[in-house]
Amino acid sequence: MLAPISHPQAVDWIDERTNPMPGEECAVAGAVGRVLAGELRSRRDHPAIPVAAVDGYALSSAATVGAGDYNPLPLRVRDAHQAQVKPEEACKVMSGEPLPGGTDTVMPVEETELRGGFIDIFSPVAAGANVIPPGREAREGDTVLAAGRILRPADTAMVIALGTPTVAVCRRPVVGVVSARNDIADASGAMVAALVERDGGIVDSTVAGVDGLASILAGADHDLLLVIGASGVGANDNAAVALSQCGDVAARGVAINPGETTTLGSVNDTPVVILPGPPLAALFAYDMIAGRAVRRLAGRSGELPYGIRRLELDRKVASGLGRLECCRVRVSAGHADPIAVADNRTLSTAVRADGFVLVPEQSEGFAPGGEVTVYMYDQRY
Amino acid sequence: MLAPISHPQAVDWIDERTNPMPGEECAVAGAVGRVLAGELRSRRDHPAIPVAAVDGYALSSAATVGAGDYNPLPLRVRDAHQAQVKPEEACKVMSGEPLPGGTDTVMPVEETELRGGFIDIFSPVAAGANVIPPGREAREGDTVLAAGRILRPADTAMVIALGTPTVAVCRRPVVGVVSARNDIADASGAMVAALVERDGGIVDSTVAGVDGLASILAGADHDLLLVIGASGVGANDNAAVALSQCGDVAARGVAINPGETTTLGSVNDTPVVILPGPPLAALFAYDMIAGRAVRRLAGRSGELPYGIRRLELDRKVASGLGRLECCRVRVSAGHADPIAVADNRTLSTAVRADGFVLVPEQSEGFAPGGEVTVYMYDQRY
Repeated sequence: MLAPISHPQAVDWIDERTNPMPGEECAVAGAVGRVLAGELRSRRDHPAIPVAAVDGYALSSAATVGAGDYNPLPLRVRDAHQAQVKPEEACKVMSGEPLPGGTDTVMPVEETELRGGFIDIFSPVAAGANVIPPGREAREGDTVLAAGRILRPADTAMVIALGTPTVAVCRRPVVGVVSARNDIADASGAMVAALVERDGGIVDSTVAGVDGLASILAGADHDLLLVIGASGVGANDNAAVALSQCGDVAARGVAINPGETTTLGSVNDTPVVILPGPPLAALFAYDMIAGRAVRRLAGRSGELPYGIRRLELDRKVASGLGRLECCRVRVSAGHADPIAVADNRTLSTAVRADGFVLVPEQSEGFAPGGEVTVYMYDQRY
Repeated sequence: MLAPISHPQAVDWIDERTNPMPGEECAVAGAVGRVLAGELRSRRDHPAIPVAAVDGYALSSAATVGAGDYNPLPLRVRDAHQAQVKPEEACKVMSGEPLPGGTDTVMPVEETELRGGFIDIFSPVAAGANVIPPGREAREGDTVLAAGRILRPADTAMVIALGTPTVAVCRRPVVGVVSARNDIADASGAMVAALVERDGGIVDSTVAGVDGLASILAGADHDLLLVIGASGVGANDNAAVALSQCGDVAARGVAINPGETTTLGSVNDTPVVILPGPPLAALFAYDMIAGRAVRRLAGRSGELPYGIRRLELDRKVASGLGRLECCRVRVSAGHADPIAVADNRTLSTAVRADGFVLVPEQSEGFAPGGEVTVYMYDQRY
């Protein structure tokens, strides 16, 4: 039987086995939240030609010299954009439209007065005013988005505007989630499935008895396989035994609390993480170990996907030396209040918590009044 | 023609017309990110009976008195859980399983030694050790999750464990997204669709010319309708004119920059927001106005869905009085560096930014060195 390993050792083991998935082309409109497989460069100047920055009338700035409240300049309104616009004419444009030939500026529509087929201009306007010049958004060859970028909604508009309707994004890793055994593992399995999706994976979910588990393990062809439950040390009817029979067990147990029965190994080149069945332990072991694998495969940072706050600790947090501990906290008014310090088994502590503090292996905890880093369970705060 | 309104007036207008959608029952396993329509109470004590907190052997604590390294206590291992366990017996349990009758504690498997059909116990163990007592997770009648909770992965496990596989969540609002006109609106339309989904809405997307727009508006039956592009003031071939012909225009223009042509109104009791076509203006107007409606309908907070950081401003930010301005910033090492302060038209400023600062109506900007609130475009930082 292998001995437990430290959390940093588990991280190294994960990192050695997980690189971003290869890229696949994907319509950018559906790619928000996906990870760019390579940098995105602009193939052209964008805009290619000057475009209107506002709704208004394109015209020649030279013609407006001397215009004023007591000396309005009337310009004949042209309908079409095709032909050359003359100095005594103006052509209606909407923001984003190219400037017609013969014009070099746009007068905002609200600063004009429409009178029959003419507009009146009441002030001079500078060349280039209210115009987006060529290349202002991007120059040909510019890196617009870096590799590894998690695409935002605004990136969608940028990429479409650049004329590249598809982008190469990391393929989402297919993650097998096998609930090994019982009611507890079922509850944890649904949770882990949601966590895998949060981290960019595609879930292939199964429930299996001990016998079914062995055949699922033997046939593993996922990018990552997570087994939930039956990770207990020393029992002989558990997932680790099944894993050792058809693959390799790399570590029995990781020094984290909760989650110390987490087991690492592989079958057919598929990394396998056996997570504890109890939900609180499954949650912490997922976040600290299995989730790191999912995130890295998905092209994301392996780090915890939670926002961070630095907060003052209201009460003491005690922790055992030699293992990484999770202490759930409630947050209010700049303070973090530990929940149920002695209880690392009850899921409701995580449900009631706003976030958690990590107590490293070499620490026995934190004194009240000190500042700690809190990982926030919710995205926003 | 109606005059522009202030951003607070636009917020009031939105808030008066948007309440959380009614609830619908939904399998909890697929409900992560959805919003609870009412509070969730536990219908029973959970666990209902004492359960094992670890994998190990359930036994009677009284029998272990006097056990020691030099005085191991052998207990016969029982297979089944059904019958009463005698003091000289132990019954294997996995974490989460009920304690068999006659037992009151669990000895962790790694602290025992298995020898034939017996285990050896090397120390006394207290009653209740490694046991989760009844009601520890929740008492009957406890509010486990409050109304309005955005369901987290861990909530899934909690709700399943409580025996309630479905939950009542706010129906997702159906949001019509109509791109009014041209290439720019198409790019903005894809972005706005992604933003609506981020905020909990279901997108019903269309592209329409000016004529098509009028008939879409006239037949509006969405929970919210967003029209993108052709919001320009004073033109006669635009969405606001179409809106005024088949419904009501409440405000032509909102004092935000960019996005000042944003128009509010309604048709057939459907609130309508006409967003500017240029993507940067569409982004800001969505976040500050239309998105507030989506988020409130979805049962979420109307506030901006971005994480917040307090950061020191590297350079001056100047802004016009009388309108709410968006200043994009890059963030590094606790500092916020304004991007292209004078440019509120180029989408690439938002793509390059890490977040943005809001300059309120009554402010002319911020001096360098002061601390400002930065809304972070990415969820994590």
